[in-house]
Amino acid sequence: MRYELYYWPEIQGRGEFVRLALEEAEAVYLDVARDKGGTEVMFKLMEDERVKHRPFAPPFLKAGKVVIGQTANILLYLGARHGLAPREEAGRLWVHQLQLTIADFVVEAHDTHHPIASGLYYEDQKKEAKRRTADFLKSRTSKYFGYFEDVLGRSGGKYLAGKRLTYADLSLFQIVAGMRYAFPNAMAKLEKKLPRVVAVHDAVAERPRIAAYLASDNRLPFNEYGIFRHYKELDA
Amino acid sequence: MRYELYYWPEIQGRGEFVRLALEEAEAVYLDVARDKGGTEVMFKLMEDERVKHRPFAPPFLKAGKVVIGQTANILLYLGARHGLAPREEAGRLWVHQLQLTIADFVVEAHDTHHPIASGLYYEDQKKEAKRRTADFLKSRTSKYFGYFEDVLGRSGGKYLAGKRLTYADLSLFQIVAGMRYAFPNAMAKLEKKLPRVVAVHDAVAERPRIAAYLASDNRLPFNEYGIFRHYKELDA
Repeated sequence: MRYELYYWPEIQGRGEFVRLALEEAEAVYLDVARDKGGTEVMFKLMEDERVKHRPFAPPFLKAGKVVIGQTANILLYLGARHGLAPREEAGRLWVHQLQLTIADFVVEAHDTHHPIASGLYYEDQKKEAKRRTADFLKSRTSKYFGYFEDVLGRSGGKYLAGKRLTYADLSLFQIVAGMRYAFPNAMAKLEKKLPRVVAVHDAVAERPRIAAYLASDNRLPFNEYGIFRHYKELDA
Repeated sequence: MRYELYYWPEIQGRGEFVRLALEEAEAVYLDVARDKGGTEVMFKLMEDERVKHRPFAPPFLKAGKVVIGQTANILLYLGARHGLAPREEAGRLWVHQLQLTIADFVVEAHDTHHPIASGLYYEDQKKEAKRRTADFLKSRTSKYFGYFEDVLGRSGGKYLAGKRLTYADLSLFQIVAGMRYAFPNAMAKLEKKLPRVVAVHDAVAERPRIAAYLASDNRLPFNEYGIFRHYKELDA
């Protein structure tokens, strides 16, 4: 089966968590808005009266006739199908729990530059962004990454759920990469306390399929339209 | 099996989505911090070195030896066990997708009064809260609730996933109740366009077990410590 991924074509964003899983799984997929030139077909599907399970927002994945929305939910689906999650229930729930915690972090990382409204420009909420980011870098990043460091210390392997890679590790790679782009100064300091997290980042980056993907044009660069944005004034 | 729910004892908060599912399922559970008088035992479990799957934050549910965190993940688990979600995969994923969209809404509802930092008082971010809330009430509430209204129009039954109640319906009830408490003026206006959403709210409230729960002391009142807070100045 060829999957169809629907997501904004110009950014990594939330779609990237899905792309990384598809790449690691060597799944055949069409990145619809990029490969078909635009978001029109994405919006068409979102507004199609015949789609019973209409997604609230991108990304969503078409797998045969099924349309699946919400990043963590897509990964729950892909994880079970492509060996990217444990088979037994407790392990499956645990990896999903980690993913949902990463999802919470992603919202907070996004809201550093958009604390007032996602519909407004950054420039229109810059003052508030400075305040929010200061708290995020002071209190939140160490709390989240410290948690993942602790989970890795207990996991019994080099990955979050033990010896085998799961989709949560791919997502942990992505938030490290994103934070390095957005807040290089703050992240350089923080990483000193995160040897296990950094080791997961490096191990993921070196996996042959991921390494090939990252080196290709398919990996979009970070930019100031996505979740992780670099604004010098915010990276104290 | 007797479940143990761990959550802050003074608020509905995210724990309430779990409580509603446990109540509708007539599950036997201990609301640990309330029944055992305090959060100490909750923090102890969170910091216990022997707990392999340590949760990032409350709520979490102990089911035998398994500890499950993240509200939507707990509901995924309970839904499968207590007939609160479809059995087949596509239906199960769909209900989870709806729950994750409700979870996104909950973050936004919370951040109306805490747009800068959850660690600061409301009074220290009141100005920013006014700006964020204005956008939330203007753009976000109608987008989310309009979406659920549309989903109900396509579901083929009176509930979100069709004729049978799922945990997502219980959560939809809860966000309607929360919005009515926090923003009575804005919500009264909005509800005129949401006959199906209001019908789900009413149907859930009338279910015998939920009605009994809501009438009991076990249902905590809304207050200004939880997600949905009533500040007159924010409800324009």
